[in-house]
Order: sequence, then C-alpha cells, then structure tokens
Amino acid sequence: MIRSALKFRRAVLADLPAIVALLADDELGSAREAPWETASHRYRDAFAEIDADPHQLLCVAEIDGLIVGTLQLTFIAGLSRNGSRRGLIEAVRIARERRGERLGEALLTWAIDMCRARGCTLVQLTTDKRRLDAHRFYERLGFEPSHLGYKRQL
Amino acid sequence: MIRSALKFRRAVLADLPAIVALLADDELGSAREAPWETASHRYRDAFAEIDADPHQLLCVAEIDGLIVGTLQLTFIAGLSRNGSRRGLIEAVRIARERRGERLGEALLTWAIDMCRARGCTLVQLTTDKRRLDAHRFYERLGFEPSHLGYKRQL
Repeated sequence: MIRSALKFRRAVLADLPAIVALLADDELGSAREAPWETASHRYRDAFAEIDADPHQLLCVAEIDGLIVGTLQLTFIAGLSRNGSRRGLIEAVRIARERRGERLGEALLTWAIDMCRARGCTLVQLTTDKRRLDAHRFYERLGFEPSHLGYKRQL
Repeated sequence: MIRSALKFRRAVLADLPAIVALLADDELGSAREAPWETASHRYRDAFAEIDADPHQLLCVAEIDGLIVGTLQLTFIAGLSRNGSRRGLIEAVRIARERRGERLGEALLTWAIDMCRARGCTLVQLTTDKRRLDAHRFYERLGFEPSHLGYKRQL
C-alpha cells in the first residue's frame, strides 16, 4: 500500500525545510545543524548552488506529499580508471518514523540507477565509523568498505 | 634548491600523458589504467569534462617543466553542516622517483589552500585500506580517519 505512493524526485526549494529537518534529526547531525529558523539563508544559498550545478542532484523520497528521505548525488568526471565518471552519495537520511520499511534501500537503488544513467561506472560514499547500522545497510546493497574516509575541518 | 623550482598549477591538456603515467605507476593503479596509447581518447574526453566544470580543479606539481605530482579537487556545495561547501580530493600521486622529498605534503597543503579559497569548511578524501603509508601521510597532515569509504562498481 505505502510503496505504491513512494516517489523519488529532484528536490525543489519548497522541500528545503523538510530536508534540513531530516539532516538535523540524527544522532550525529543534530550537533552539526543549526535550526532552520536561524540558518535558513545559509541553507537557501547552498540549495541555490546545488540546484544550479548540472553535476549535482539533490533527491527526495516522498510519500503522499510528505518528504520521508533525502540524499545528495554528485557526478564526478575523473581521469582514474581510464577516464571514468563516478557518483558520490552524501547526506543520506530517512525520516525516523519511517525507518524499518526499507525506504532507504529503495532510495539508494534509485540513486544508483541515476548514477548509471549519467554514465558512472562507480558509486562511492563514506559513512561515519560509528554508524554501525549504516555499515550493514550499505554492505547489503553491495557496497564494499574498501577505503578509509579522512576528513579535515578548515 | 629543488624546492625553489616547485610549482603547483591547474593542469592543461598537454599535461595529460604525464598525469596518466602517474596514475598508472602505482601498485593499485597499474591494474586499473589502460596504456595511454590505447585509451587516450577516453582520457581526453574525461579531461575535457573536468576542465569545463567550474567545480573541478585538476592540479599538477611541476619541477623544471616536469610533472612530478597530481591530484583532483572537486568543490561540492551541500546542505549538511549549515549549508557548507566541502572539497573532495581524488587521485593523488607523486612520481615514484621523487617520493621522500615531501612534495606530497606541499601539494596537499596547496590543495587545502585552494579549498579554503573556494569557501570550503571541510576537506575530505578516501584512501584504500591497503595504503598504510598514505594513512600515516594524511594523519600527519591533520586528516582524521573518522569514516569508512564504501565503493560499488556499476
């Protein structure tokens, strides 16, 4: 029943408060995100930049008009691997109250199809070492934890 | 003496064979890269796409006209972390015969400055779990191995 109404699409400006709420409603994200009310101009600026970039695709999953998931795709041309293009997945979230319904799996599968359609031969992502559930999730989807992910704050 | 001639700059088409040679001259890369002679059209296409993208910067390190290092930067706008921009580093190589001269450190420091100049508040990269020397290198440069890097071939 629910699945028949599940839809994936490019995000529009009107989705922005719902997406930011998803980013913040997370053990690690809650410490990093400012409330929409105080930082909406920053989120709007970032949205405009993402939306104007033909190599970016900010995605939402929607059920009956409600945003239940999000992720961000970047399609990156590169020289490595004989000049292949790769898809980068960032900022994956499923609404807390909709977890356990395999929406994440459906969203990721759709995102991987988008990468394939853009000619990517590789999809990559990093996930915090503390997100043990996420590790199992990505491994179930055929991702291999072959790399270490390094970050440096500027 | 050598350091005074070390220069970092945006790659141009004429650098392409040298960059591909650096990508291939690597324990893991050698199995992945086709020789320049048979795949040059694919590398040229990829170069054109990178070069035309304002959010990408393919970089080379040069000493006295010789390419001694390379890396690729992608500047990615995002909603996470209050709408912050991040720099992604890929395909880092230093010429085999010039390793141990701290050229990598100088190249990375320059690349991080480029990210800062583009307004990034975070720089990230992944490195194969087998590259133990690389792990020490990035940790010395202040990168934290906080994430797992997942990849899936398409």
